[in-house]
Amino acid sequence: MPPALTKLIDALGNLPGVGPRTAERYAYYLVRREPAKAEQLAAALTGLHSGIKYCPKTFALIAADHDVSPLYSDPRRDRKLVAVVAEPLDIVALEKTNGFHGTYHVLGGLVSPIDGVGPEQLHIHELVQRIDDDEVEEVILATNASVEGESTSLYIQQQIGDREVKVTRLARGLPIGVDLEYADQITLSRALEGRQAL
Amino acid sequence: MPPALTKLIDALGNLPGVGPRTAERYAYYLVRREPAKAEQLAAALTGLHSGIKYCPKTFALIAADHDVSPLYSDPRRDRKLVAVVAEPLDIVALEKTNGFHGTYHVLGGLVSPIDGVGPEQLHIHELVQRIDDDEVEEVILATNASVEGESTSLYIQQQIGDREVKVTRLARGLPIGVDLEYADQITLSRALEGRQAL
Repeated sequence: MPPALTKLIDALGNLPGVGPRTAERYAYYLVRREPAKAEQLAAALTGLHSGIKYCPKTFALIAADHDVSPLYSDPRRDRKLVAVVAEPLDIVALEKTNGFHGTYHVLGGLVSPIDGVGPEQLHIHELVQRIDDDEVEEVILATNASVEGESTSLYIQQQIGDREVKVTRLARGLPIGVDLEYADQITLSRALEGRQAL
Repeated sequence: MPPALTKLIDALGNLPGVGPRTAERYAYYLVRREPAKAEQLAAALTGLHSGIKYCPKTFALIAADHDVSPLYSDPRRDRKLVAVVAEPLDIVALEKTNGFHGTYHVLGGLVSPIDGVGPEQLHIHELVQRIDDDEVEEVILATNASVEGESTSLYIQQQIGDREVKVTRLARGLPIGVDLEYADQITLSRALEGRQAL
C-alpha cells in the first residue's frame, strides 16, 4: 500500500472504536471522493484546538473568542439552577430536550479509581464556589446512571455539605419505548423505587 | 457548541457509516487528546491525494512516485496469473493470505445497474489487453460472492471470449469457524455443489 494511504489509515485507527478495517474503509472512501473532502476534514482538524477553549466558569467547551459560555452569560438562563454533567457533550444532549433553562457545570469526568481519576481532578471545588457566588438554589446531578456517576454524585453531595441548596438527580426508570420484559433488573428496581403517583 | 467543534463534527459525519453521535465521539476524543493527534490526522489527510495514484497497468493504488504497482514490477510475481478484484483494498485482503504469487487487476467497482455502473466504466478492456500483452495463463475472478460480483464475472468471461486462458473464480462454501446450522441456504447450496473429494 502507498505510504500516504498507510499513514492515513494509521491516523484514523487512533479514533475511539475504530479498528484497522474501519480505518481502511474511511481512508478508501476519502481516496475515491474529490480531494476537497479530505482537505475540508484536514482544515477542521487543524482549526480545532485553536478554535476552542474551556469556559472558566462552567468548563463547557466554547469558541476561543468567547469569555464565558453563552449558556451562562445568556440572561434568560437561570444561574440559580445548575445541571452538573460529566462531559461537555452531555450539555448537547440536555439542550436537545428543550426542557432546561438553567446553566451547566462540567466536571470534566467522573470519579473512577480504576482510571486513576480522583475527585480533586474534577471541577467540584469550582462548583461549590459557584453555589456560593451565584446563590444557587438547585443543583441537578445529571451524571451517568453508573457506579462512577453515583459515587461522584455522593462526593459532590458531601462537598456541598449543609449549604442551603436543593440537590436533585435525574430520575432512574424505564427508558421510553422499551418493553418492561426487556428492562434489566437494576433499572426495574430503580423504576419501582421511584414510582410516581398518578 | 463552538463553531470549530461543529465544523469538525460535520466533516467527520461525512465518513461512511458515521452518524452525528459517532462524529461527536470522535471529535470530542480529539479535543481531549493533545493537539498533535489532530494535527497528525490533518497532515495525513492533506498528503493523501498528492501521495497516491492509480497504477496504469493494474489500477491498484500506488505511491505517487512509483511508475507501476510493486506487485506488478516485482520479478517474483507471476504476470501470467492475474487475480481480478473490484477494489484496491481487496488486494490487501488477498495479500494477507500469503498464498498468492500472481499479479492483480483492479476493476474499480462492479457492474451495478442500480448504482449506474456499467461494464464500460470498469477496467475490463485493460484486463483483456493485459491477457494478450502478458500472455496470461490464468485469470482468477476474485470478485464478491454477490449478484454484482457474479454478473461482473460473467461479463468478463464473455469479453475474454475464446482466448486460450484458464478462467477460475474463488471457491464458494462454508466460511471457516462457522457452524453448518448457522450457514445460510445459498452458501450451503454452493458448498454442496462445490464439494471436494477427500
